[in-house]
Amino acid sequence: MSPSVDQLAILWYPPAYDIRVEKVSVPRVEHPDDAVVKVRLAGLCGSDLHLYRGTEGITEPCICGHEFVGEVVELGSSFQPSVPCDRPSLYSTLKVGDRVISPFTVSCGECHFCRVGFTCRCAESRLFGTPNTPGGQAQYVRVPKAGGTLYRLDEALAAYTAQELEAQCSTPRLADSSLLLLCDILPTGVFAAFQALNHPKTLPMMTSQPYPHSSALITLKGILAPSLHRPQDTVLLIAVIGLGPVGVCACVAMLDILHAKGLDFRLVAIDPIEARRNKMASIYSKMSRDQERGYLEVASIEDSRCIIFEWSNGVGCNVVLEASVVGNSSALSLAYELVRPFGCITSVGAHSDSAVPFTGRELYDKNVSLDFGRCPVRAMFPMALDLLVRRQDIFGDVGGEVSLVDKVVGFSEAATMYQEFDKGKCGKVLFDPWK
Amino acid sequence: MSPSVDQLAILWYPPAYDIRVEKVSVPRVEHPDDAVVKVRLAGLCGSDLHLYRGTEGITEPCICGHEFVGEVVELGSSFQPSVPCDRPSLYSTLKVGDRVISPFTVSCGECHFCRVGFTCRCAESRLFGTPNTPGGQAQYVRVPKAGGTLYRLDEALAAYTAQELEAQCSTPRLADSSLLLLCDILPTGVFAAFQALNHPKTLPMMTSQPYPHSSALITLKGILAPSLHRPQDTVLLIAVIGLGPVGVCACVAMLDILHAKGLDFRLVAIDPIEARRNKMASIYSKMSRDQERGYLEVASIEDSRCIIFEWSNGVGCNVVLEASVVGNSSALSLAYELVRPFGCITSVGAHSDSAVPFTGRELYDKNVSLDFGRCPVRAMFPMALDLLVRRQDIFGDVGGEVSLVDKVVGFSEAATMYQEFDKGKCGKVLFDPWK
Repeated sequence: MSPSVDQLAILWYPPAYDIRVEKVSVPRVEHPDDAVVKVRLAGLCGSDLHLYRGTEGITEPCICGHEFVGEVVELGSSFQPSVPCDRPSLYSTLKVGDRVISPFTVSCGECHFCRVGFTCRCAESRLFGTPNTPGGQAQYVRVPKAGGTLYRLDEALAAYTAQELEAQCSTPRLADSSLLLLCDILPTGVFAAFQALNHPKTLPMMTSQPYPHSSALITLKGILAPSLHRPQDTVLLIAVIGLGPVGVCACVAMLDILHAKGLDFRLVAIDPIEARRNKMASIYSKMSRDQERGYLEVASIEDSRCIIFEWSNGVGCNVVLEASVVGNSSALSLAYELVRPFGCITSVGAHSDSAVPFTGRELYDKNVSLDFGRCPVRAMFPMALDLLVRRQDIFGDVGGEVSLVDKVVGFSEAATMYQEFDKGKCGKVLFDPWK
Repeated sequence: MSPSVDQLAILWYPPAYDIRVEKVSVPRVEHPDDAVVKVRLAGLCGSDLHLYRGTEGITEPCICGHEFVGEVVELGSSFQPSVPCDRPSLYSTLKVGDRVISPFTVSCGECHFCRVGFTCRCAESRLFGTPNTPGGQAQYVRVPKAGGTLYRLDEALAAYTAQELEAQCSTPRLADSSLLLLCDILPTGVFAAFQALNHPKTLPMMTSQPYPHSSALITLKGILAPSLHRPQDTVLLIAVIGLGPVGVCACVAMLDILHAKGLDFRLVAIDPIEARRNKMASIYSKMSRDQERGYLEVASIEDSRCIIFEWSNGVGCNVVLEASVVGNSSALSLAYELVRPFGCITSVGAHSDSAVPFTGRELYDKNVSLDFGRCPVRAMFPMALDLLVRRQDIFGDVGGEVSLVDKVVGFSEAATMYQEFDKGKCGKVLFDPWK
């Protein structure tokens, strides 16, 4: 790579709805912790539409995109074989030529939040696809704090045998179009499912031990942990509100965890849009053969109320995932309506400046727990990759009936794709910068 | 006990501030699941003031009180030695003469919520001290669903040796004035502390494993759970807002759990009232000798901001307990202000009909988790009793510098005590119906 070469990139121009493909300089290492990545595929994500529509308050043009997979082509001076031992291992082991994926935000790997696993709240967090951190919808992208941010895929996949990797794959290795799901939507869905099923108020149903014995923290003198032996006490009733890509991933992750643990459950997957319900139903029917301890039903908002009432004798769900990409007040109100006393509501979408639609008395009266916030993608990567590898029947597909990826196109179609995606005329689009 | 005998009881009369001691009929068993309990001590609790002040919308007189300890004097026909095996054991083992305590609400022990441990949301839940469930500030009280509601103390204490029970006691057995704390405030404090320390977002600091490995639910192929080895990553910063009896119990429970696990911590105990801060400081100094891995500091609201800023370099607390008896909007706002990204806010007080003071964006931006609601006293009883037994230096005291109980008085002082308690002129008062 020569420093003077130009590259192609997708740029957004203010104030809104203005997407152009332009020649810009290839980024170079600017800081010892930087990497430059040659992009193999970049995703168009629902949250790119905030920028596209001009609602982010950004006033200068920028290179779009926060989902990308690629290959390391240049590294800063921090990436020497001998680095101080308290740096994350990628600062010593990342090499030119490594196949990598990136979360949608920068994480240093070294601050308290990164070490504890709350990587999306890294002290140096930056969102790709903004003026100060040019995005991945380009032929090359500079990755700050690359030792904390990038995942080295070959190392992560080394835990799997060739048979495991190829068992359910039509392609010999995981395709880039599949790996790209790890940048955002798949870990976010896994995080939503994990947060809800791992909540102390859900654990009695997961472990068949009543609260608080269901917790690992408790150790009590002379107290034998009792066991829940009535099947009706441990069957999990779950609602997922919103069947966009994150909601679908959350459902698949839920089904996967519940199946692995052999738990009884009923899951209602809710969306007002029929096409989304149909896609979820197709995905479920493809994966349902080995799901014998429960079932998923898709429903409109109205139908979901009746279904949950009937399933639970009017009591409500143990767990409600609010997985609309842009969390909104009516989805939160529905979540409260559907949740039972001592239930959990998990919300992984970004929210607006409106007050949340709950009174203190409502939250008290139902003993509700709420978990809000962005997925720590970097920390959830192992769980998400594991699901991706085992569920290639779903996540390996492009353009098919169950695919989360609608099509892969070249940059020349960028403006059209943003337009169509904004109007809901197409599903998830990936850009191949070299097509 | 003869059926025609009258008894003395403390009654509240509408519309407000009208407390009278009157002769009323001794309650009798009305349903096969009932018990009648002879009351040895009854507590006056902060939440009795809702009724006293007339803010509950109740329009007929009723016998007050939801905290009582006593002795079973009559049992319904359900309490036979041979009962169907799917009933909770107290329905077969409870006997006339048993020393019992009661949570502040009725719980059947048999519905889904009771079995799972969420006893305060029992399908048959009723609050003592209301017109349909006469309270415990009387010589006798009828306890509905007694097999699910009452705790048989002698059975619970059988797990402890005489030495353990007497080691820190000035009295040969746990005094009634100490046991009375188990009806509400001690388990509520334990619940608040347990909920916060047991939250998945707190567990990395409790277990020295990063999220999500810190969870029991995760089992991943080829993933070794890493360990947090920098001391600054695992020190827990905690704020408790409100140093009424529940807040004090929450602090003691926190200190106890943190000490038992040998964890590093800083706890700031916040109250605007100096007398409450002084009591908390006295209690802490009495118990602090064996707390070597952290410390507690009391603070006013203003000071707490500076202390936490300094302790955390401006990042905030891992955990905030909102323990004001009547949860209010400004306490919740302070909790949000003090909590760090990926922190937890636990709120155990009853709240009003006002909207909670958070926007969706605020909750998203800090990845906040919120746990609301009433303590499931019946389920928390073993943990609370265990703390009570081991902390008789604090909880065994009456009227002393560290005591949570200010005085024990007869019914003749009831009207005066309600008045003084309402005006904040006295601390917790217990009534001895036989004095």
